[in-house]
Amino acid sequence: MIAFLPLCCHPNPKKVLIVGGGDGGVSREVVKHPLVEEVYQVEIDDRVIELSKKYLPTMACGFNDKKLSLVVGDGFEYMRTNQRKFDVIITDSSDPIGPAMSLFQEDYYKLMKNSLREGGIVCSQGGSFWLDYNYIKKQMLNCSIHFPRVAYAVTSVPSYPCGQIGFVIGCLDKSSDFKDPLIKFSSSEIDAMNLKYYSSKIHSSAFTLPRWIEKNFYENGNPK
Amino acid sequence: MIAFLPLCCHPNPKKVLIVGGGDGGVSREVVKHPLVEEVYQVEIDDRVIELSKKYLPTMACGFNDKKLSLVVGDGFEYMRTNQRKFDVIITDSSDPIGPAMSLFQEDYYKLMKNSLREGGIVCSQGGSFWLDYNYIKKQMLNCSIHFPRVAYAVTSVPSYPCGQIGFVIGCLDKSSDFKDPLIKFSSSEIDAMNLKYYSSKIHSSAFTLPRWIEKNFYENGNPK
Repeated sequence: MIAFLPLCCHPNPKKVLIVGGGDGGVSREVVKHPLVEEVYQVEIDDRVIELSKKYLPTMACGFNDKKLSLVVGDGFEYMRTNQRKFDVIITDSSDPIGPAMSLFQEDYYKLMKNSLREGGIVCSQGGSFWLDYNYIKKQMLNCSIHFPRVAYAVTSVPSYPCGQIGFVIGCLDKSSDFKDPLIKFSSSEIDAMNLKYYSSKIHSSAFTLPRWIEKNFYENGNPK
Repeated sequence: MIAFLPLCCHPNPKKVLIVGGGDGGVSREVVKHPLVEEVYQVEIDDRVIELSKKYLPTMACGFNDKKLSLVVGDGFEYMRTNQRKFDVIITDSSDPIGPAMSLFQEDYYKLMKNSLREGGIVCSQGGSFWLDYNYIKKQMLNCSIHFPRVAYAVTSVPSYPCGQIGFVIGCLDKSSDFKDPLIKFSSSEIDAMNLKYYSSKIHSSAFTLPRWIEKNFYENGNPK
C-alpha cells in the first residue's frame, strides 16, 4: 500500500525515490507499476540490506530489478544533490521516536518538495491512529506547510502493534483528490502484477477514516 | 460497527434481536438508531451482565435504555419461540472455537432466518481474515444456504488479535447491496447520536476487502 497508494495518485510516476525501505519490500512493489521507469533507493544502513538478502529473500528480491538503483547513504544528502528530479518520494522508515525522527519533521518535507518535479507526491510511514494520534497530527501539519494537499490513509498489517499502519501523503497539485486513483487497474491487471492487497477499491477505502479521526484530523479537508 | 452496519442495510429496522453481547456495548449502540423501536437481547450468562455492570459501566449503560428488553436465556430457545418477528438479528458471541461454536453453524442460520420478518438481516461476529480465514469461508457458506445475499465486512479494533474483527452479514432481500447503506446519516446526525466510529463512508469501506481476500471469498458476488 505504501507503494501503490502514491503511485496511483500520480498521473505519470516515471521516476520514484525510496528513502529507507532496506528490507526491499517497497522496491519490490514499486517496480511492478507499468509507468514507473526508474527507481532510486537510498538506505542508510547497508547491514539491513545484507541481512534482508540473507533472511528475507522474498522481500529483498526487490533489489534485483533492473529499474532499481540502490544507494547506501543518507536520504537528506541525496535529496540535496538531486533537486526537481522525482515524481514520487516514498519514505519507508522506522517509527518517529529515535533515529528516524528527522524523517517526520518540517525540514524533511521541505527537502522532499525541492526534490520533486511538478505535481509530485510524497508518501511516508505514518504510524497507527490508535497509538500515534499526536505524532500523526504533527506530521500532517509539517507536510501541509509545503504541500497544498495532505491526507492520511490506513491499512491493516497484522504484525504491527494494533494491526494497523498509516501513511501521510502530500501532493504538490492542489486539485488532487487522493481517494480517487488517477490510474485504475482492472482486477486482471492487478492479478497480473501479483498485487495481493492493493486494488482501486481498497485505495479509496484506505482514505476513509473513522468518524472521530476524520473530525479530529481534518477541517474543511485540510489537516488541523 | 456490528450494530450500525446491519441496521443501515435495512430500510426500517424496527425490531432488533441481539444474541449474546453480555457486556452491553452492542445494545448501547443499537438503541441509538432512530428507527429502532424495540430491542430484545438474549444473553445466556447472567454473570457476564452482572460483572459488566460492575466493571464496565460505560458499556453496560446500554442495558438501561427503555427500548431494551433483556432476557437471560438461550438464544436458540428464544428464537424457536419467536418466529417471523425481527428485522435485524445481531449475534455478538465469542470465537467459533468452544462454547459459542453452535452460533456459526448452518442450523443457527436457519433458525435466524425463521425468526426474521421479510427482508430481514443477520450480522454475526466473524473473526479476522488474518487468523480465521477458513472459519470465515465456512461461516459465509453456512449463511448463504439460507440467505440469498451474504457479505463480509471488517473493522479495526486495536485490542483484538491482529487488530481486526469482521462480520458475516446476510440478507433475505436478494437485491440488497450491503456496501451502499439504505439509511445515510449526515455528519451532524452521526455526531448527535454520539457514534464515534461509524459513518456512511466507513460503512462502504468496511465491505471493501484486500484483493486476495476478495478473490478467495467471492465468486460472482457470492461466497465460494
